[in-house]
Amino acid sequence: MKKILLIGTGLSSSTLIKYLLDNSEKYGWQLIAGDYKLETAEAKIAGHKNGKAIKFDIFDPKQRSQEIENADIVVSMLPARMHMMVAETCMKHGKSMVTASYVSEEIKKMHSQAIEKGIIILNEIGLDPGLDHMSAKFIIDRIKKRGGELTAFRSYTGGLVAPKYDNNPWNYKFTWNPRNVVLAGQGSAAQIIVEGKYKYIPYHKLFLRTSRTEVLDAGEFETYPNRNSLKYRELYGLDNIQTMVRGTMRRPGFARAWDVFVQLGMTDDTYKLEGSENMTYREFTNTFLKYHKDLTVEQKLAKYIDVDEDAMRMYKLRWLGIFKNKKIGLKNATPAQILQQLLEQKWALDKEDKDMIVMQHKFEYQLEGKYKRVTSSLVVEGKDTVHTAMSQTVGLPVGIGVKLILEGKIKKTGVHIPVTEDIYIPILKELENYGIKFEEDKETLSS
Amino acid sequence: MKKILLIGTGLSSSTLIKYLLDNSEKYGWQLIAGDYKLETAEAKIAGHKNGKAIKFDIFDPKQRSQEIENADIVVSMLPARMHMMVAETCMKHGKSMVTASYVSEEIKKMHSQAIEKGIIILNEIGLDPGLDHMSAKFIIDRIKKRGGELTAFRSYTGGLVAPKYDNNPWNYKFTWNPRNVVLAGQGSAAQIIVEGKYKYIPYHKLFLRTSRTEVLDAGEFETYPNRNSLKYRELYGLDNIQTMVRGTMRRPGFARAWDVFVQLGMTDDTYKLEGSENMTYREFTNTFLKYHKDLTVEQKLAKYIDVDEDAMRMYKLRWLGIFKNKKIGLKNATPAQILQQLLEQKWALDKEDKDMIVMQHKFEYQLEGKYKRVTSSLVVEGKDTVHTAMSQTVGLPVGIGVKLILEGKIKKTGVHIPVTEDIYIPILKELENYGIKFEEDKETLSS
Repeated sequence: MKKILLIGTGLSSSTLIKYLLDNSEKYGWQLIAGDYKLETAEAKIAGHKNGKAIKFDIFDPKQRSQEIENADIVVSMLPARMHMMVAETCMKHGKSMVTASYVSEEIKKMHSQAIEKGIIILNEIGLDPGLDHMSAKFIIDRIKKRGGELTAFRSYTGGLVAPKYDNNPWNYKFTWNPRNVVLAGQGSAAQIIVEGKYKYIPYHKLFLRTSRTEVLDAGEFETYPNRNSLKYRELYGLDNIQTMVRGTMRRPGFARAWDVFVQLGMTDDTYKLEGSENMTYREFTNTFLKYHKDLTVEQKLAKYIDVDEDAMRMYKLRWLGIFKNKKIGLKNATPAQILQQLLEQKWALDKEDKDMIVMQHKFEYQLEGKYKRVTSSLVVEGKDTVHTAMSQTVGLPVGIGVKLILEGKIKKTGVHIPVTEDIYIPILKELENYGIKFEEDKETLSS
Repeated sequence: MKKILLIGTGLSSSTLIKYLLDNSEKYGWQLIAGDYKLETAEAKIAGHKNGKAIKFDIFDPKQRSQEIENADIVVSMLPARMHMMVAETCMKHGKSMVTASYVSEEIKKMHSQAIEKGIIILNEIGLDPGLDHMSAKFIIDRIKKRGGELTAFRSYTGGLVAPKYDNNPWNYKFTWNPRNVVLAGQGSAAQIIVEGKYKYIPYHKLFLRTSRTEVLDAGEFETYPNRNSLKYRELYGLDNIQTMVRGTMRRPGFARAWDVFVQLGMTDDTYKLEGSENMTYREFTNTFLKYHKDLTVEQKLAKYIDVDEDAMRMYKLRWLGIFKNKKIGLKNATPAQILQQLLEQKWALDKEDKDMIVMQHKFEYQLEGKYKRVTSSLVVEGKDTVHTAMSQTVGLPVGIGVKLILEGKIKKTGVHIPVTEDIYIPILKELENYGIKFEEDKETLSS
């Protein structure tokens, strides 16, 4: 039997583990699932005869070395900063490794060493990064092969609540790490290129730079740019493309309401508020508004964002409770931490709620003198609270990647991401069996 | 003769060196002025019989130890990050030390060790920090001694061009490090307290949070908050004060025009622009504006900031040249670096120009049932391009501080800033001889 060592059995590993166990008999696999909390691993393995749960401490060099030496392939679902420790041990014992995280500069440097050892370190093979690369590159390569020239590429992804359960005025619930949602977009300006012009959008303007799109039957979404889109030109072999935008999807109206938090300074995570534990949410909000001896906090905020108190944005903010005289109770908290706590109370998924992943690519290209557009769209809903859309779209590509390596169908060695046919074709194909299928829509724009 | 070792003989040391040499005969001092560039030190000493210029390398531990051992007192005018090396060597040899920089956490920790060694490390004794502490604390202590209770303290400082030379539409020229001017206010939100309410102002709103004030005969200024004003409550013994604001002064209209750069993202120093060397300033500006196939860059910007093209802000921006088809020529530059280069061409002091320092404190307090206000104001103009207002207001307090320590008039040991009478009274008094004198204006607000 071939031994697969999976490290990290948290939320996003659920569907991955199911996939590996479901296929274990057919392909002759044993899955060793390690977690810092043994119970977590045990719950996921659930006594499957080809599975084994172990307590695994990534910081124990002896255990790390033994377990990796003993495995045929290693999957790291740990937080990204821990992958390097796993990679070094895999290198030592000549074992291939798979992760769903962005490939770090450190790991990139291991490329020639991995080739010497005859192993592959396959990264960015989850949802985003992962499925985005594969589904985009599938179409880019096809257009190029036919002699087309790409002029524009726009790509958007969103993790949202499924329509049936979408019952709050923000049309949003947390289906992923709330802290990351609150801090998203901070740091450097978003970088895109439009009609050959570089465009840099500072964080405090990001949520005003929205576009609209429709995705299959899932309805209308708004999009806004996401970090550095420029680097994807090189990754996707689109060095001369005139327009390149990657972004995030939300339901219409979300971004303009979120922008209020940005304008106030409530998403700032760089300093702590004095006496935050004794402050109320109302006082917290007032802290970002100019002193006025007569106006209420609501009136000041409506003025600050230049709307009247009946505006939809004010309603969304009231609904969240930012004007409530309720104690925060968090000590020495940053504005972002306080905002996150408030949002977690209001944007939590209910027990029966299901999530939804939407992804859409729009390609514009010139072929035989005609301008054309292909739109490729995906909507995936969660099956339940364990096999969420997120868990499926992250875990299945990883699982299939592991299978292809073990079967010798991915033959390359070195450090890679899934942007080549040998990887993305079999993975996209198998994903269709699980209902993860991109729908294409083609238009001719002009001749 | 007593030996004073001065390390760092750049621009802001000019008046300090003159003060020390002018007083050297009377008090029996020898000044050893060290700089990494010997010529700089030599030019400042200019053959004075009680002065000696040396080449001094702060990173040479042997020289550092020898020169400090050989001195009676050490003045560090080096960049703030280098003070610690000087302080450790001063500690070793039991020599007192004076700096005009903010006292770092590292240096604060040397307090009891300095007491043991019988030395003083006197920091924050330039202009800001320095003169601001002394002039404010002078009045705060006086009010408290009389039984008054302070309710509000607002304090503003500005480094500007003197009115006679104030001949550009921004009413501003660089009289200080341009990079610091461009980056000022970034990082954490500005923190103030108003009528007992904490107020946090994010960077992208800072330049819209202006107030107006008049300073003596120098006319009207606008002010905006500067970093963390809250910590001054403790420094000045004003723990329960209801309003505490420290800020920066500019001529009216500056902040709203500067805010355009902030809104565009042009002051961002966290990422580099691809191909910046071949870009023009017009392209640079366009980089921050949404693509539009018909509108000019000027039209797009006017729309972005919601003014018409004749508005004063547009004039200021045109005057700077942000719409000019002129090559930037800076390779891999950040937006802030490009903006700085442009501003340096337009905001440079001419050869004959003189600078101006304005400082104003407003204290509100209750005494014998009455509400009163004292306004204390200072205007200092540069004498010439060497003995600028900046050089005088930084250098003279340092020089007088050195004198008081050498004369045994400052007796305390440990790590200190000038917030106590024994230090600020003799310094403020002597500064008056040099025309650095605060004018007070008193009002009774209500009974």
